[in-house]
Amino acid sequence: TSAGAQSAVSVSGIVDAAARHVSNDGVGSIRSLVSGSNSTSRLVFSGREDLGGALAAGFHLEHGFLVDAGTPASADKFWDRRSTVSLSSAAMGELRLGRDFVPSYVAWSRYDPFSYVGVARSANLVSATPAGPIRSAFSTNANTTVRSDNAAQWLAPAGLAGFEAGLMIAAREGGDAASGRAGVRGARVGYAAKSFSVSAAAARTENSLTSAGSFQDKVVGGHVDVADVRLSGAWREFRQSQATQRLLMLGAVATFGQHEVKASWVKADMSGRAGTVSIDGTGADQCGLGYVYNLSKRTAMYATVARIGNDGLARYVISDGPAGMAAGGTSRGYEAGIRHRF
Amino acid sequence: TSAGAQSAVSVSGIVDAAARHVSNDGVGSIRSLVSGSNSTSRLVFSGREDLGGALAAGFHLEHGFLVDAGTPASADKFWDRRSTVSLSSAAMGELRLGRDFVPSYVAWSRYDPFSYVGVARSANLVSATPAGPIRSAFSTNANTTVRSDNAAQWLAPAGLAGFEAGLMIAAREGGDAASGRAGVRGARVGYAAKSFSVSAAAARTENSLTSAGSFQDKVVGGHVDVADVRLSGAWREFRQSQATQRLLMLGAVATFGQHEVKASWVKADMSGRAGTVSIDGTGADQCGLGYVYNLSKRTAMYATVARIGNDGLARYVISDGPAGMAAGGTSRGYEAGIRHRF
Amino acid sequence: TSAGAQSAVSVSGIVDAAARHVSNDGVGSIRSLVSGSNSTSRLVFSGREDLGGALAAGFHLEHGFLVDAGTPASADKFWDRRSTVSLSSAAMGELRLGRDFVPSYVAWSRYDPFSYVGVARSANLVSATPAGPIRSAFSTNANTTVRSDNAAQWLAPAGLAGFEAGLMIAAREGGDAASGRAGVRGARVGYAAKSFSVSAAAARTENSLTSAGSFQDKVVGGHVDVADVRLSGAWREFRQSQATQRLLMLGAVATFGQHEVKASWVKADMSGRAGTVSIDGTGADQCGLGYVYNLSKRTAMYATVARIGNDGLARYVISDGPAGMAAGGTSRGYEAGIRHRF
Repeated sequence: TSAGAQSAVSVSGIVDAAARHVSNDGVGSIRSLVSGSNSTSRLVFSGREDLGGALAAGFHLEHGFLVDAGTPASADKFWDRRSTVSLSSAAMGELRLGRDFVPSYVAWSRYDPFSYVGVARSANLVSATPAGPIRSAFSTNANTTVRSDNAAQWLAPAGLAGFEAGLMIAAREGGDAASGRAGVRGARVGYAAKSFSVSAAAARTENSLTSAGSFQDKVVGGHVDVADVRLSGAWREFRQSQATQRLLMLGAVATFGQHEVKASWVKADMSGRAGTVSIDGTGADQCGLGYVYNLSKRTAMYATVARIGNDGLARYVISDGPAGMAAGGTSRGYEAGIRHRF
Repeated sequence: TSAGAQSAVSVSGIVDAAARHVSNDGVGSIRSLVSGSNSTSRLVFSGREDLGGALAAGFHLEHGFLVDAGTPASADKFWDRRSTVSLSSAAMGELRLGRDFVPSYVAWSRYDPFSYVGVARSANLVSATPAGPIRSAFSTNANTTVRSDNAAQWLAPAGLAGFEAGLMIAAREGGDAASGRAGVRGARVGYAAKSFSVSAAAARTENSLTSAGSFQDKVVGGHVDVADVRLSGAWREFRQSQATQRLLMLGAVATFGQHEVKASWVKADMSGRAGTVSIDGTGADQCGLGYVYNLSKRTAMYATVARIGNDGLARYVISDGPAGMAAGGTSRGYEAGIRHRF
Repeated sequence: TSAGAQSAVSVSGIVDAAARHVSNDGVGSIRSLVSGSNSTSRLVFSGREDLGGALAAGFHLEHGFLVDAGTPASADKFWDRRSTVSLSSAAMGELRLGRDFVPSYVAWSRYDPFSYVGVARSANLVSATPAGPIRSAFSTNANTTVRSDNAAQWLAPAGLAGFEAGLMIAAREGGDAASGRAGVRGARVGYAAKSFSVSAAAARTENSLTSAGSFQDKVVGGHVDVADVRLSGAWREFRQSQATQRLLMLGAVATFGQHEVKASWVKADMSGRAGTVSIDGTGADQCGLGYVYNLSKRTAMYATVARIGNDGLARYVISDGPAGMAAGGTSRGYEAGIRHRF
């Protein structure tokens, strides 16, 4: 084999820091230094070995960290962002084992102009008080709206005329919710051409808190390029027992040379009951506007503003603001920072 | 000196994941994704500096992790597998300071066809209910059957006509058992030729739980190559106060081109008392059979099956199965996975 | 841009281990293996990108660890030593965001012949029983005498005819003392020529424990080279509410070829009250003497001895000795080790 010639490990990553200001109605404001507002700060070790006959092996270890304080993003999972080993074939696709993104997250985040991070991230509207389907299914434990441990995945090979597909099965391992172990079954299909794409995905999770049913996560999205502007839209639904949350996201990214202007609008609605408590009328909408100045392909300065308006009973907020905002309040944030890839 | 020319750091490691199924008599079975069943998943930073005059300096930092969940193998010791700095001389051998394997583990694990990992690892029979000498000496704290912190070692130079030797002294540092600090004194001698080897080692550990005596760990082992088959055998004894555990291991590894077939049989016996409780009759035996297909020198697919049969009072089990098996039950496991070195 | 050509990441670090013996009056002695007595054991990932036009971007991630046990130096901050992203210009200096040294520490530690580490480190006299200003301001939480999270810094450009300057502002982020969040404002100025330097720095920290005032940290220091001997001196004052601690440090480092001889004398005094308790008469002095033999530019063997003499009510000790020394006692330590840079 040609293995001997390919023992190089790639060390790469991103360091991203920003100064942030968040004010929440009635409870004041907080200034902070935050990490990963344009792109999550990370350190990656990865590699690939050509096994001959269009077969390859590979690994990917990705550590997320908070550059503002030097802490791992996850207290217990050092390689929280991804931790996988793979065998892949040009004809058959890739078999990937380990911790990775769930199919529904992949289909959703690609259409968020803010990549699920920073003051204007669509993640701000994912959880809320009172508890909706996510908290009913996972309580305060790690949920599977972004990643899953213990996963076996099949990913369709590249070069299928734009066709994309992925399947994930993650073992519950007999664990209970408190242990963070959840059984996931998910799938994703899509089509990507030069100037447009569509994606759909669904995932179903079972752990001891969802034994009465299962946690369901469905996504549909797409984008189209109009001249230098990328327009995107996506819809996502979380469902557990009697509780449902729906998100609608519209986005635009305009690129002019080194300049990038981004805008997004996200709307969240809840319906049904969490236990015996009604969660109707706990929706919110969020607007975000961002500017990125690319100093090089690797380094950028950026600034973003965002605003969340809550319905009467909802308390969605931008991260790192003061606690205790009353239901129905407005959360406002802005930030400016530096993102450097290495 | 030639130091300036040698500042290269080596980054290497292993990523190994497998799907596992373990069933324990009377309590059902669990399917899981596990890490390191052919070889422990790890990330290694190491280097060596030629100091001239046959002197060299070196370091080795080795992080163990669980690829299935992205977690460090040890919650508190990130560099749990090895963390050392060395000075070595071609004539005098190596002085190595830091955390490393104890001499008795080195002498034992080299004769385990399954390298102390996976469903068929000899480690399955090392601890048990009721408590034997290991748990009497260390309770649930880290024990010194594999590694020790705070160790100073001398390792004989290579090239002594096959002769091997090592000495280890680890400081107890005034710590108690709860702090995981243990004083170790150990030694290892051996002889290794092209087609056979013999090894013997002994280690003695003292911490506040062993103040009534000391924890003792003795190993004798050897191997011989017969055509393409490596036959090995080893014997190990743990002793603390009135409690003794003895392990006997026989192994065979046959290599044919890219194919490897492995088998092992391990028998554990306990005798004496742990505190006032008799531990007689708490033995078990384990059989393991494995197949490895080497796709390259770095990448392999593998499958292993194992079975543990317990004596009347013993409850040894394969890892990651359901809890609560009754004494005397049988534990069965199988797994299939991918191992990739980088 | 020229970014594409510069994606190299630098992986470097230090591994340093020593055998140490510390005896404290009346409570015996402890032998231990310790980490970082000549230079803190660390692993560093860093890089720099030339952005053209005398602009550059850079990052620095520095992990401290204890080589004796394989543990991170900080249980929660993996990148405890430094975690920053930077933009810099040859004319305007550097803007640096993240966790880094405070200006007062930088001005102090450069004049400690023992670099703030090992048995003779000036850090031994920084905290004490009864509590002085540091413990009154931070209790047992992380203090800002060395580093701060959430910091924005400006560092003057190199090449200003020897002039040095730095400014730091760190966000308190609304956090309380228990969360380890502290707001810092600090500045440093200095002048460094080939054979002498002077530095002055001040920092002011506010957190919920310092709300009655603020924690203040002031430093003045300098050095002069006389033939092969570097003579240094520094003075530092910590102040919080009614409590004051003052440190005076004198040092000498003589270098002859591969040999280095180091000596330091440090005196600490406290005055005022911590709460209602007087802290007058809780001073101490420390002498340290060290020898370093440089095997190469990267690797050295070293030995150090140190002695702390306490005033009647003080209990300053050398680290890793037995607990419980009575007030007024003497603490003695020596160590010998290996330091290897990579």
